Amino acid sequence: MIIQKEIVLKPQKRGFHLVTDEILVQLPELNNISVGIAHIFIKHTSASLTINENADPTVRSDMETYFNKVVPETDAKYYDHTVEGTDDMTSHIKSSILGSSVMVPITNGRFNLGTWQGVYLCEHRNVGGSRRIVVTVVGE
Amino acid sequence: MIIQKEIVLKPQKRGFHLVTDEILVQLPELNNISVGIAHIFIKHTSASLTINENADPTVRSDMETYFNKVVPETDAKYYDHTVEGTDDMTSHIKSSILGSSVMVPITNGRFNLGTWQGVYLCEHRNVGGSRRIVVTVVGE
Amino acid sequence: MIIQKEIVLKPQKRGFHLVTDEILVQLPELNNISVGIAHIFIKHTSASLTINENADPTVRSDMETYFNKVVPETDAKYYDHTVEGTDDMTSHIKSSILGSSVMVPITNGRFNLGTWQGVYLCEHRNVGGSRRIVVTVVGE
Repeated sequence: MIIQKEIVLKPQKRGFHLVTDEILVQLPELNNISVGIAHIFIKHTSASLTINENADPTVRSDMETYFNKVVPETDAKYYDHTVEGTDDMTSHIKSSILGSSVMVPITNGRFNLGTWQGVYLCEHRNVGGSRRIVVTVVGE
Repeated sequence: MIIQKEIVLKPQKRGFHLVTDEILVQLPELNNISVGIAHIFIKHTSASLTINENADPTVRSDMETYFNKVVPETDAKYYDHTVEGTDDMTSHIKSSILGSSVMVPITNGRFNLGTWQGVYLCEHRNVGGSRRIVVTVVGE
Repeated sequence: MIIQKEIVLKPQKRGFHLVTDEILVQLPELNNISVGIAHIFIKHTSASLTINENADPTVRSDMETYFNKVVPETDAKYYDHTVEGTDDMTSHIKSSILGSSVMVPITNGRFNLGTWQGVYLCEHRNVGGSRRIVVTVVGE
């Protein structure tokens, strides 16, 4: 069985945000899947998805600190793609480092994540707006 | 339905290259899939795949600039795996940062990418040659 | 056909470790799949999975050298999430850069990897313990 849904995630400020529940609430069909995988894909090149710690919010703020350090906006002077500002090319770079999709196993109608895992929306733009994702579930 | 094809991508110079059309032209079977996912996998450890902006070519050259800065060849002195030159270990590192595969949703016989998204071949070697990929489509 | 198994990988010291065979020995069902994909997912946020060179062990030690340089523990002073030590937040960061899962094509009952490719467990903690993974095979 294949289920596919396009979901809109609400706008977030620049940074890393836990969105597992925002996705799950729009995916009641998951209950019918006893075993499978879910592909969660973001249709943008200046925001990304990753899986990381779901408990302490400082993990999310520290992630933002780290990626701003390793992909600094002050480097915009080395780039040619800068029409939309100093957060333009840095957002594309962060997006490819972190990735445009995550893949989660499904077991007994639920995401089979580790106890401490959650899905993050990584918003790399200062003003990103709402973000569209496509969730495709392949299961039985 | 599962479709799997091994595809050879033509040699590219070191850098980031848009290959969505080069893949699609070798994948006419996609027309028969109304919903599904495509796994695109590169069978090499010194080149990688990512999804990023498909319009402005300076995004691709700026990506090369960034990755050469964060994984510099001048660091070869810290590495032991250097038999094939200063672009040897750096290519392995870039390959794991960017990843050996991308996963694309399929909707109505087409890759369901965002308007600005394309698939990049990231060639990390100075002389990489042609690159083999395996595309596996799971769909209905 | 969908096959899903939870597998425990034996504890490894901090660093990059080739685990292809440790996974395959626990996955005899693969023989029955003529074509498909395998999703290999780690249920932790301080260890990760990647695909890289399977031959020269110095690739693995050089990977550890690189990631310690680009995600240095001496940066712990910039982070708030430090309860478990200087290798705590750095492990979360490395985990998102490298990724929580890899996806491998299956052809004729075997992982269809390139000649030089293998699956790495990337252990980012000084003492990580055994690591649980979920392997989901979608195939025919």
